[in-house]
Amino acid sequence: MVQVAVMGHGVVGSGVVEVLLNHCDSIAKRAKEEINIKYILDIRDFPGLEYSDKFTKSFDDILNDEEVRVVAEVMGGVHPAYEFTKSCLLAGKSVVTSNKELVATKGAELLEIAKEKNVNYLFEASVGGGIPIIRPISQCLAANEVIEVAGILNGTTNFILTKMIKDHMSFEDALKMAQELGYAERNPAADVEGHDACRKICILASLSYGKHIYPELVHTQGITKITLEDVAYASSWGGVIKLIGQVKKLDDGTLDISVEPMFIENGSQLASVDDVFNGILVRGDATGDVVFYGKGAGKLPTASAVVADIIDCVKHLKARKYLYWADGDASLVKPYEKTEYPVYIRVETADKKAASEKILALFPNARFIVRSDAPENELAFVTESLTVDDQSKAAAELEKNGITVKSKIRISDL
Amino acid sequence: MVQVAVMGHGVVGSGVVEVLLNHCDSIAKRAKEEINIKYILDIRDFPGLEYSDKFTKSFDDILNDEEVRVVAEVMGGVHPAYEFTKSCLLAGKSVVTSNKELVATKGAELLEIAKEKNVNYLFEASVGGGIPIIRPISQCLAANEVIEVAGILNGTTNFILTKMIKDHMSFEDALKMAQELGYAERNPAADVEGHDACRKICILASLSYGKHIYPELVHTQGITKITLEDVAYASSWGGVIKLIGQVKKLDDGTLDISVEPMFIENGSQLASVDDVFNGILVRGDATGDVVFYGKGAGKLPTASAVVADIIDCVKHLKARKYLYWADGDASLVKPYEKTEYPVYIRVETADKKAASEKILALFPNARFIVRSDAPENELAFVTESLTVDDQSKAAAELEKNGITVKSKIRISDL
Repeated sequence: MVQVAVMGHGVVGSGVVEVLLNHCDSIAKRAKEEINIKYILDIRDFPGLEYSDKFTKSFDDILNDEEVRVVAEVMGGVHPAYEFTKSCLLAGKSVVTSNKELVATKGAELLEIAKEKNVNYLFEASVGGGIPIIRPISQCLAANEVIEVAGILNGTTNFILTKMIKDHMSFEDALKMAQELGYAERNPAADVEGHDACRKICILASLSYGKHIYPELVHTQGITKITLEDVAYASSWGGVIKLIGQVKKLDDGTLDISVEPMFIENGSQLASVDDVFNGILVRGDATGDVVFYGKGAGKLPTASAVVADIIDCVKHLKARKYLYWADGDASLVKPYEKTEYPVYIRVETADKKAASEKILALFPNARFIVRSDAPENELAFVTESLTVDDQSKAAAELEKNGITVKSKIRISDL
Repeated sequence: MVQVAVMGHGVVGSGVVEVLLNHCDSIAKRAKEEINIKYILDIRDFPGLEYSDKFTKSFDDILNDEEVRVVAEVMGGVHPAYEFTKSCLLAGKSVVTSNKELVATKGAELLEIAKEKNVNYLFEASVGGGIPIIRPISQCLAANEVIEVAGILNGTTNFILTKMIKDHMSFEDALKMAQELGYAERNPAADVEGHDACRKICILASLSYGKHIYPELVHTQGITKITLEDVAYASSWGGVIKLIGQVKKLDDGTLDISVEPMFIENGSQLASVDDVFNGILVRGDATGDVVFYGKGAGKLPTASAVVADIIDCVKHLKARKYLYWADGDASLVKPYEKTEYPVYIRVETADKKAASEKILALFPNARFIVRSDAPENELAFVTESLTVDDQSKAAAELEKNGITVKSKIRISDL
């Protein structure tokens, strides 16, 4: 019998306890050991539960109990999750987590400690909820060079965009609906500003390229400025707007990595990922495109991923899993201004004829797109591939000529 | 350094050698050991290759060399792959394979030997080519009960159906095109009759439910009888025809398992899986629907999956991976005639009015569907859920009344 502890009894934590108790037999079969929850750490009281006797408010109970070999950290946030995780790893306990913020900000350090102590630090649940993605990237694609990873990594924003696209709801109304349905939090910034997706693409990038990519190095833009006008233009262009986290290795060895809304062609596998679903595309040199699709969040999907990691730790109490990346720095990432891509631009202008000429002078290969019911003073076009620097210079030139840039959205190559 | 052998130097085998040689360094890093190909077994000669010195025609060279710890069997077919695999496992060597026919027909026996000898028998490449699916089902979904697995498991038939749906090509023309492009073999029976998909769903079912499901227990129907008329009716019904391998556990504990063409609603994630791509949906009680998508075949995707298994074996030379199912028998499978589903039926009749009345008498909740340019003597409808037995009885009754049944296609609940 292996003793484990669960730190945090919120949505995911209670789900982990539930899955461990309800699937006890099949889990024991898979893990080849019985798994027993010895402690559940939470500052709150949970009287009246079947397992109320397992609760403790003292982290030291877990840290100092040598019987506890595996700890699930499902508290969220960086502090004190970081300190607790570090102490557990240093004490020779394996740790599994769903805490993307901690992995994205402290992953390299914690993985280094795990390596030194010959224990595991696993985080399948940190990206994609119940969708297996960390393991497939690290194991099955071991014989591949990862060319690119791109995904719809946040269900809340994808729900909002889907409502805007399919039901022509405004961003504000769609956000309100997401909040009412419990998909978005009262303070939705982490989702709608792209921070959640940023943490996830950092984890996937670090895993794929072996060096820690910190969130502050990643250009991150949310969906708060997306309008129904842009949605309509995307549609007439032949696609949809999705919030995409993406990373790819450039010829000079640096990474093009960002989180931002993008135009995605309707034919792409990611275009049909709707509502709260996530979809992650991994482009390998041998496998070609492989796409993983499913619910990216939720109590039971996430909990089942945490439990799968617990099982894996129990099976690997001696042999360590290979899951590791080294520390990284800013030199790994191409400065966003230097990255290159085609872009959609929507402008307002008093003089459409003059504006069209100016646009074609600045963007010789621009292609204009139209939408029904567009106001008289609106123009929209897509450019060829340009650096962000050049885009900005040209946009400034437009503004100088009385042409107001209302939107600017990246066009994806997916 | 770990010595390995590759048995078979066909498409996949040469790909395995290529991947092992080209990704030598990154593989050594992942496996934490250098991997060296000591032998390549093939009855043919391959002079002039960089690695021509590694070839042998004698299986005994591999079997009797104690240095060889891992063997990749990429020969295909049951004999002599079965005898070679068995001998290797009995000699304490781990075996990895892309050979779905062998796993589907002899899996339980070979897994039992692997277990006794404390070695691994891995077969990620046997289903879905480069798409990771065996590992995700066996590991990541360890904390789930698998409710259902359903997939587009054969790229050749999916290519043919896509051409029929999108370009209105006939089955014969689409097959010829697939052959010209190298997607279909000169004798295409294994693909178009559904046998290849059958082997794959047997492997997925055995893994998901823990008992070997043998191909002869599975109702298997190919796509040779699908016509453009049926494709048009599927479209007006709101979907497409796909060849689906599916298994789900019924309330009485038996499995509903089959390979057959099905109507799939356009909204389903599997409906948009086109061309030679595969898509596999795994429905877990905790994760909900998770879908895996990618190229299901091809030299490098398949080879990279084989190499990932080799790496896994090298990392687990002592600790065995949990990948196992027990022997199974016919009692596990619901007889096909007793399974229940709604069905699409297309008929020809001289008297449409009388036929409509007869149809509604036999299928009280039938819903007629129409297509443009239908000949005067054609009717098509979809029924509510009925056992196959009842469908057949009603169809016989139609025939007795001069109504000829031209097509009968299952309607999926995906």
